[in-house]
Amino acid sequence: MAQKPSIPKGTRDFSSTEVAKRNYIFSIIKSNFEKFGFQPIETPTFENSETLMGKYGEEGDRLIFKILNSGEYLEKVEDQILADKNTKKLTPKISEKALRYDLTVPFARYVVQHQNELEFPFKRYQIQPVWRADRPQKGRFREFYQCDADVVGSNSLWQEVELVQLYDTVFSQLGLKGVTIKINNRKILSGIAEVIGASDKLIDFTVALDKLDKIGEDGVKKEMLEKGISETAIEKVQPLFNFTGTIAEKIEKLGALLKTSEEGTKGVEELQFICNAIDTLGLQSAHFDLDVTLARGLNYYTGAIFEVAAPAGVAMGSIGGGGRYDDLTGIFGLKNMSGVGISFGLDRIYLVLEELGLFPETVTTKPQALFINFGDHEALYAMQAMAQLRSAGVRVELFPDKAKLDKQFKYAEKKGIPFVIFVGAEEIANRTFKLKNNHTREEQIVHLAALTAALQ
Amino acid sequence: MAQKPSIPKGTRDFSSTEVAKRNYIFSIIKSNFEKFGFQPIETPTFENSETLMGKYGEEGDRLIFKILNSGEYLEKVEDQILADKNTKKLTPKISEKALRYDLTVPFARYVVQHQNELEFPFKRYQIQPVWRADRPQKGRFREFYQCDADVVGSNSLWQEVELVQLYDTVFSQLGLKGVTIKINNRKILSGIAEVIGASDKLIDFTVALDKLDKIGEDGVKKEMLEKGISETAIEKVQPLFNFTGTIAEKIEKLGALLKTSEEGTKGVEELQFICNAIDTLGLQSAHFDLDVTLARGLNYYTGAIFEVAAPAGVAMGSIGGGGRYDDLTGIFGLKNMSGVGISFGLDRIYLVLEELGLFPETVTTKPQALFINFGDHEALYAMQAMAQLRSAGVRVELFPDKAKLDKQFKYAEKKGIPFVIFVGAEEIANRTFKLKNNHTREEQIVHLAALTAALQ
Repeated sequence: MAQKPSIPKGTRDFSSTEVAKRNYIFSIIKSNFEKFGFQPIETPTFENSETLMGKYGEEGDRLIFKILNSGEYLEKVEDQILADKNTKKLTPKISEKALRYDLTVPFARYVVQHQNELEFPFKRYQIQPVWRADRPQKGRFREFYQCDADVVGSNSLWQEVELVQLYDTVFSQLGLKGVTIKINNRKILSGIAEVIGASDKLIDFTVALDKLDKIGEDGVKKEMLEKGISETAIEKVQPLFNFTGTIAEKIEKLGALLKTSEEGTKGVEELQFICNAIDTLGLQSAHFDLDVTLARGLNYYTGAIFEVAAPAGVAMGSIGGGGRYDDLTGIFGLKNMSGVGISFGLDRIYLVLEELGLFPETVTTKPQALFINFGDHEALYAMQAMAQLRSAGVRVELFPDKAKLDKQFKYAEKKGIPFVIFVGAEEIANRTFKLKNNHTREEQIVHLAALTAALQ
Repeated sequence: MAQKPSIPKGTRDFSSTEVAKRNYIFSIIKSNFEKFGFQPIETPTFENSETLMGKYGEEGDRLIFKILNSGEYLEKVEDQILADKNTKKLTPKISEKALRYDLTVPFARYVVQHQNELEFPFKRYQIQPVWRADRPQKGRFREFYQCDADVVGSNSLWQEVELVQLYDTVFSQLGLKGVTIKINNRKILSGIAEVIGASDKLIDFTVALDKLDKIGEDGVKKEMLEKGISETAIEKVQPLFNFTGTIAEKIEKLGALLKTSEEGTKGVEELQFICNAIDTLGLQSAHFDLDVTLARGLNYYTGAIFEVAAPAGVAMGSIGGGGRYDDLTGIFGLKNMSGVGISFGLDRIYLVLEELGLFPETVTTKPQALFINFGDHEALYAMQAMAQLRSAGVRVELFPDKAKLDKQFKYAEKKGIPFVIFVGAEEIANRTFKLKNNHTREEQIVHLAALTAALQ
């Protein structure tokens, strides 16, 4: 007996409804990437292992899916490695390729490999799946898409300004109003570290500060003391405990706080530039805010840090993030290439749009009408009309067999096809079609031109 | 020193120009799949090994890319297997997942797994990459896309008629006029085998017959005799050696030839039905022909067999193929599901369109205009216009730095951006823009509305 088949854990089949909805999100992201001057590239599903290994830390190396070499892959492996069951030594000998873990490292590899064919600044976008051998859980998959836009080879802060606009444009066009685009700057975080007199305490500091809403000022200070941050240090950054107001007000507070730190002051200036520009240009529907606790990828980012939060009331982590990183391509030998980029979290955006009912009804690939099959003679007449309808862009289908009417109706109903079309002897004689709206049950007799117009 | 990075052999990076051209082909195929009532599904990149292994023959099993299990994958492996370096026994113990080898087996798995959610006949299309550990060579890659449309759960020959129309519609819309859609039928081949009195000689027979153009009737007959086909048998199928004329004439010849074979006669009737319908409906630009030597996937197809040849004069193998198969889903326990489908060969279609210069110039993701950067004040003014242009659907980019004019021009030129836009003090004062056509060198001073209209 054949067993009912299944798919590997953490992976998904997508039905046509899901594909249509995902493609709707992709297409809005893509068209806006292109309007902002980004151009698509695609890289292979698997890379040489040495391209990926060691780029994501030890945990990352473990989570990379490795491809077994073809053929007699054990032939040249030393017996001792096998006798010891030493997988650490064995893996690189029996696996030379691995599945893409993110889009950033393949992008860096692409830029270095193709540097002589590219114009810098190079603005690329990439929308492709990635794979991680993570423990699957709700909302976390082993195969998922990333949607990244990055610029390399430019230090200009106009890039940051445009990326904020890009986020705003995409979410506005998706109808997802009221997202918050949060910004911070690695240099401000470094400045704070300088001011509190301990670079190594920075993460403890931001983690504690982030709890202000939940545990209050006293709670936060207590945690900071426990983590070894001195009272004097905490005293110095007192303004962060009442860090409210407009972005301009926040920047002013930060400016005062970090005036003794050269790096911190640089960070404040960068923020000031970006915020001024956004203030002048305006945003369509997103909120823009400065969040000094924002520290994602701290080891990685060197300037601006971005994160997008779903609209208030929607329980969902960040739906996008990014930032500026220096020396992205340094790992492959091309130095001094500053980059800045953002990413859209497809799966979470999908869930938010679903929850808020924001997918337009037109997002479907379903046939718009089903021709009822009364036999070969009628079917041939129907097919002639179908060719016309299709060339006018209408999606139509013929029920393939002369089945009972009831069966054909049920098929249309279950598939959610909105119209059925009857062609019998009378219609053929008059060169007409009987069009029935499955929802309203209304029927009308129409000629081909009117039929086309009704379905277009 | 970092080594210049590379990608695994048989894989490809795609530049933005290539991605745009590939997406152009995909989008025409997709929109027509949908007009013909097919709906998209997507399946995971990797399947459980037992889903794939044993479905493509011994050679196929060897060419499937296998994924190494995560963690201490050797832990439960018997020492003896390792001591023997017995990869045949070891592989299933250290690899439970494998990359998709084609779209057909995952489709069959999908239908069986989701049978209770689907309406039959189920018309699906699927456009996804597949991977094969084949020896890479010109035009053969280890990662490539397949574009398949299939119907399962219907024996109706209208499906075959529609698939011929679908091929014609897609190639016509791609501007690729004059392809030949060849049809044959497995039952006709079986009928021929019956008539020549040897089912086991069928492949030898078709292979030899296929050489008629090259080696002539005598050469073919000589080869057949060498393969053990008797003179009497060859005599019986003499009409096949002069198998020319219209499809109707060919069908008539076949009808006479195969009248003693029940299966052969059934095949002739099926062909007759399909050809009559196509004759009545007409095709837009493709030729339609009957080719009795067409035998692709002989072990697999049970009814119609299709193949599409590039227009005369283009040296390229088939650019599409398909056919009817019974019992596709039987391997996963769902019996009696007849299916019929076709496939488009993306890489070859790409090469043919490139060779014939058929990609429209509008197939590009390049920015339509570059705003020259004269400094922050001017850039901010430019950015305000850019937001308007982008919301009107125009792709625009700001040069990120106040660089030398020459450098900014060269950037536009090298990237192939057709227009540059200047905004200096005078333009800002007059709320105008200086638009320069990089090709004709023409310049004009315009307001925003005219600028938008010029670029749209």
